[in-house]
Amino acid sequence: MSSTGHQGDETIVTKEMDERSLSISHGQEPYVHRVGVPPRQNLFKEFQATVKETFFSDDPLHSFKDQTKSRKFILGVEAIFPILSWGRNYTLRNFRGDLIAGLTIASLCIPQDIGYAKLANLDPQYGLYSSFVPPLIYAVMGSSRDIAIGPVAVVSLLLGTLLQNEIDPIANPTDYRRLAFTATFFAGITQATLGVFRLGFLIDFLSHAAIVGFMGGAAITIALQQLKGFLGIKKFTKKTDVISVMQSVFSSAQHGWNWQTIVIGASFLIFLLVARQIGKKNKKFFWVPAVAPLISVVLSTFFVYITRADKEGVAIVKHIEKGINPSSVKEIYWSGDYLGKGFRIGIVAGMIALTEAIAIGRTFASMKDYQLNGNKEMVALGAMNVVGSLTSCYVATGSFSRSAVNFMAGCETAVSNIVMSIVVLLTLQFITPLFKYTPNAILAAIIISAVINLVDYQAAILIWKIDKFDFVACMGAFFGVVFASVEIGLLIAVSISFAKILLQVTRPRTAILGKIPRTTVYRNIQQYPEATKVPGVLIIRVDSAIYFSNSNYVKERILRWLMDEEEQIKGDYQTRIQFLIVEMSPVTDIDTSGIHALEELYRSLQKRDIQLVLANPGPVVIDKLHTSNFANMLGEDKIFLTVAEAVAYCSPKLAEDP
Amino acid sequence: MSSTGHQGDETIVTKEMDERSLSISHGQEPYVHRVGVPPRQNLFKEFQATVKETFFSDDPLHSFKDQTKSRKFILGVEAIFPILSWGRNYTLRNFRGDLIAGLTIASLCIPQDIGYAKLANLDPQYGLYSSFVPPLIYAVMGSSRDIAIGPVAVVSLLLGTLLQNEIDPIANPTDYRRLAFTATFFAGITQATLGVFRLGFLIDFLSHAAIVGFMGGAAITIALQQLKGFLGIKKFTKKTDVISVMQSVFSSAQHGWNWQTIVIGASFLIFLLVARQIGKKNKKFFWVPAVAPLISVVLSTFFVYITRADKEGVAIVKHIEKGINPSSVKEIYWSGDYLGKGFRIGIVAGMIALTEAIAIGRTFASMKDYQLNGNKEMVALGAMNVVGSLTSCYVATGSFSRSAVNFMAGCETAVSNIVMSIVVLLTLQFITPLFKYTPNAILAAIIISAVINLVDYQAAILIWKIDKFDFVACMGAFFGVVFASVEIGLLIAVSISFAKILLQVTRPRTAILGKIPRTTVYRNIQQYPEATKVPGVLIIRVDSAIYFSNSNYVKERILRWLMDEEEQIKGDYQTRIQFLIVEMSPVTDIDTSGIHALEELYRSLQKRDIQLVLANPGPVVIDKLHTSNFANMLGEDKIFLTVAEAVAYCSPKLAEDP
Repeated sequence: MSSTGHQGDETIVTKEMDERSLSISHGQEPYVHRVGVPPRQNLFKEFQATVKETFFSDDPLHSFKDQTKSRKFILGVEAIFPILSWGRNYTLRNFRGDLIAGLTIASLCIPQDIGYAKLANLDPQYGLYSSFVPPLIYAVMGSSRDIAIGPVAVVSLLLGTLLQNEIDPIANPTDYRRLAFTATFFAGITQATLGVFRLGFLIDFLSHAAIVGFMGGAAITIALQQLKGFLGIKKFTKKTDVISVMQSVFSSAQHGWNWQTIVIGASFLIFLLVARQIGKKNKKFFWVPAVAPLISVVLSTFFVYITRADKEGVAIVKHIEKGINPSSVKEIYWSGDYLGKGFRIGIVAGMIALTEAIAIGRTFASMKDYQLNGNKEMVALGAMNVVGSLTSCYVATGSFSRSAVNFMAGCETAVSNIVMSIVVLLTLQFITPLFKYTPNAILAAIIISAVINLVDYQAAILIWKIDKFDFVACMGAFFGVVFASVEIGLLIAVSISFAKILLQVTRPRTAILGKIPRTTVYRNIQQYPEATKVPGVLIIRVDSAIYFSNSNYVKERILRWLMDEEEQIKGDYQTRIQFLIVEMSPVTDIDTSGIHALEELYRSLQKRDIQLVLANPGPVVIDKLHTSNFANMLGEDKIFLTVAEAVAYCSPKLAEDP
Repeated sequence: MSSTGHQGDETIVTKEMDERSLSISHGQEPYVHRVGVPPRQNLFKEFQATVKETFFSDDPLHSFKDQTKSRKFILGVEAIFPILSWGRNYTLRNFRGDLIAGLTIASLCIPQDIGYAKLANLDPQYGLYSSFVPPLIYAVMGSSRDIAIGPVAVVSLLLGTLLQNEIDPIANPTDYRRLAFTATFFAGITQATLGVFRLGFLIDFLSHAAIVGFMGGAAITIALQQLKGFLGIKKFTKKTDVISVMQSVFSSAQHGWNWQTIVIGASFLIFLLVARQIGKKNKKFFWVPAVAPLISVVLSTFFVYITRADKEGVAIVKHIEKGINPSSVKEIYWSGDYLGKGFRIGIVAGMIALTEAIAIGRTFASMKDYQLNGNKEMVALGAMNVVGSLTSCYVATGSFSRSAVNFMAGCETAVSNIVMSIVVLLTLQFITPLFKYTPNAILAAIIISAVINLVDYQAAILIWKIDKFDFVACMGAFFGVVFASVEIGLLIAVSISFAKILLQVTRPRTAILGKIPRTTVYRNIQQYPEATKVPGVLIIRVDSAIYFSNSNYVKERILRWLMDEEEQIKGDYQTRIQFLIVEMSPVTDIDTSGIHALEELYRSLQKRDIQLVLANPGPVVIDKLHTSNFANMLGEDKIFLTVAEAVAYCSPKLAEDP
């Protein structure tokens, strides 16, 4: 028997899955596959399954199953303090890696911390405090092996902006600091709460594109802020938008710039950028940019001390409080007006800090192929910030630049954070007085060279290539931060992210399908121009669940496809559309509004003498079609397993038609 | 040749679409179908297409194409005033239908209007005013043929509640009325703006289920409010929640109830309910419930006038201003504090009014199978409320009960609204003084019998059957309205609707596919228990576009499926998973985060020595896989047109494996 089919053969009238195989398998019994209706689950099970997928999709109690009580207790403690679990297998070999990595990130974090504290309008020691306590807490509770904890540029800037909207940090430094601790406390509470209630997925609502734009904008803003220290300007705007900053810079050009400061700053900035290039070119020299900041600090401090350049107007750090973190339990506002303000600021700063830390954690976890438990991670980060807020720290999180250095320096576990923390402790105890003569310009240069990494123009280019709408979100967040403020930028980023989600569910795609030659496969004719339409039959695929938000659109879009098609045919009776097949494979769910839309579609088609046929509804959909009685209304025999089968049902009928 | 296949045949090594057909078509050339990459569109075209689908999905300029300029002008005017288009073909026969329908709805609307005005805390004539001007405007601009325009219960209640939060209607009736007109003005502006800017899809974000619950709750609340008039209580709470109302009712039971009022009210309520039953049982008697309210008013008014029952404490209407609508242009607050308040109230009331009108319009349009243009409809409704606000009307919209009567009375066009409007005009001019002795209890009985229809318990049962989550939304809105207030209920309805959308995009479904016996079709094994897994191959279908909001979840869910599967196999080397096929038919789109997730998945699988294979990516997805270079990373030959083809690629390899 040849493979040229017997199209129009009478056996084709029997419902068949596959026209072609039917025509060449004459001896075979024809078989019909019914669309399966899954066994009904009871309500409780259904509800349980939904809750499980939504909140416990990572199956956190998996390892607790079939264990004795005491074992369960141990596993529970280990779940909260992962160090107890990985600590048992910790070897000296691991420690060597962690020691080197810890020392490297410590040398990077000390100058950065001092600079970042300034971004948050706090005294320099608070940056160091925040690199001492939080990493220790994280080391015992966190599950990422590569993240380096401490203050970061973007969160410092955000916190600084939000706090100074409430209290002037210069006029009222004590209240400002108290509000900062209050905000930090609530940032920690927010993070831990999200983790405990397993709402970690909320941070997924900030899209990657929006984050890239926001980070890039924040980096530019931070770099611009550094012009104050870099140029030695005394009177500087409090606003962060590029226009205000540039006005500040140029209006002070005549008498406000200090050339000695510029010389020191510029020469060390060049040094730092060269070091950065060396590290980039050859991965072996990753430590060069990592230690360059500390070297800059040491050299420039020594230079200023020798030349007494501070008498020439070069601004210096002047004073860093010596000693480790004092308690700040009593400084937090536990009542009053500032409690609410601290709460609000804490939520925003906590969410952004969380987003950054989780993004970093995930990146490195996927590089080393281990699973990061998002919700546990949030609890660890939250606990660390709560404890931090009680010990004079402000919001700490995972730092992009230091985590990358940590990773490249060969860290094995969170012990590298402990090493860094001890170095910071020693610094606080013994070395801080030596920072007295460190010029502010150096800190500015260090921050500029650090935040440059956050301007991820390659990611922006990739986003442009892949998704234009994403690019709009990215640029919206970027320009929002640069031209307005971090808050506005963040608001734009969140709004555009939500708008995209809403757009996605309101305007799902639909496609006309055609038959790919020599197969029984029906595909989008735009993607496969060789696919041919079946005369008299219009096949439309709906590419989304049909919900209240799109049910009307879907119905009207289908009718419009039909109108367009009928216009093309222009009344040629031979090829008049008699069947409309809706391919429902991608329709994963349908709600009451969706069922109504289908009913309306069915009635509209009936009036035009066109039969509605459904192909491959999924388990949830077929179940709902039955409970809503639509399946009966349409006729059970109009629901098929595949498009091919549906076409086989329609085509012979067309042939019979006069 | 028999149809029992030559499984394991060496020809199967060549990539084939369909294992079974291959085995029975030996003589045939093997062919491979590549996944089509659609032709690249330029950026502008792509953007244009998106904007068109989002805002102009109804193709409003379709009829303007290829027309002369003067014709375009005429079409434009006709688009704004559809009466010019359908008016030309208007016949006497049409008018007969419209006349009867118009008279019927007029007899229904007059007593309702007086009652609804009380719900909005306005004097009775304002209800009648709102049934005079707005229907006239709608008749010339609207496109629905069946909708009956005027004040409605739910919007009246909502407006009354929102307005009395700002101004006490008893202490300060003039300011209250002015704020009502201001809110009406902005309600109209909101509606027209949504229409002009083609943002009509925004009302789709209120789900059907939430509307059913909200309407039901509002109906109960309205009915409870009527207890005041029905029982003749003088001191009544201003709150609308069921607990406050019941306290009011029972605390006044001793001395506050008026038995004469109760007797009159109860007897006419029974009359109205019986009339309603008659209309329900036999569609021919639809006019019985439609005219019963007017008959009740006439009879009861006459009765009170004869018996002077008002002297016995039966509350009566007392006074309705005679004459048609005065201008209220000067009463609207064009500046000051109340401008902003009116604006906010107007937006809320306008949106709810719009939702109701569009829902009614769509229902009847689908019954008579004509297309309703949502955006045009909004412009018409907005214009009618703006004009209404300038002529002493408050927010009018389409009424469920009156539209149904209009439809059943055989209305043909919006002329029935004109007829009703003229009857209301005559009433205002000549008959209003006669309403003086109408007892309030009758109005209460009329409102109760009208709003009972809004408690759509059958819809609630259907929602329960179809979608449990929808039912929660429905009940949330219902109990919110009944136990708290209309605003709270509305807030709950909107929040739950949004939560559902967000949940939908965050936690998409995934399914394990198996081969349906004797076919090459792969389907969800939960839906088709007879489907069998292919040993060594795990086939997973992702049922949603992969976006930032779900990309991490999708990646982790796939890896968890894999873990579960591997656990089941328990290290049996023979059936070790070597291939993971991701069926991407339902994945309609992917963004940068989605691509990253795929890359991470690919790397994770690589480390476990499992090959990632993709089946049937859609046009947008395949395009993005190429631009992002993921297609190259994965290998072009790992992307197949169908799952069957992908399995054919994987299976022989498995056989070769040692």
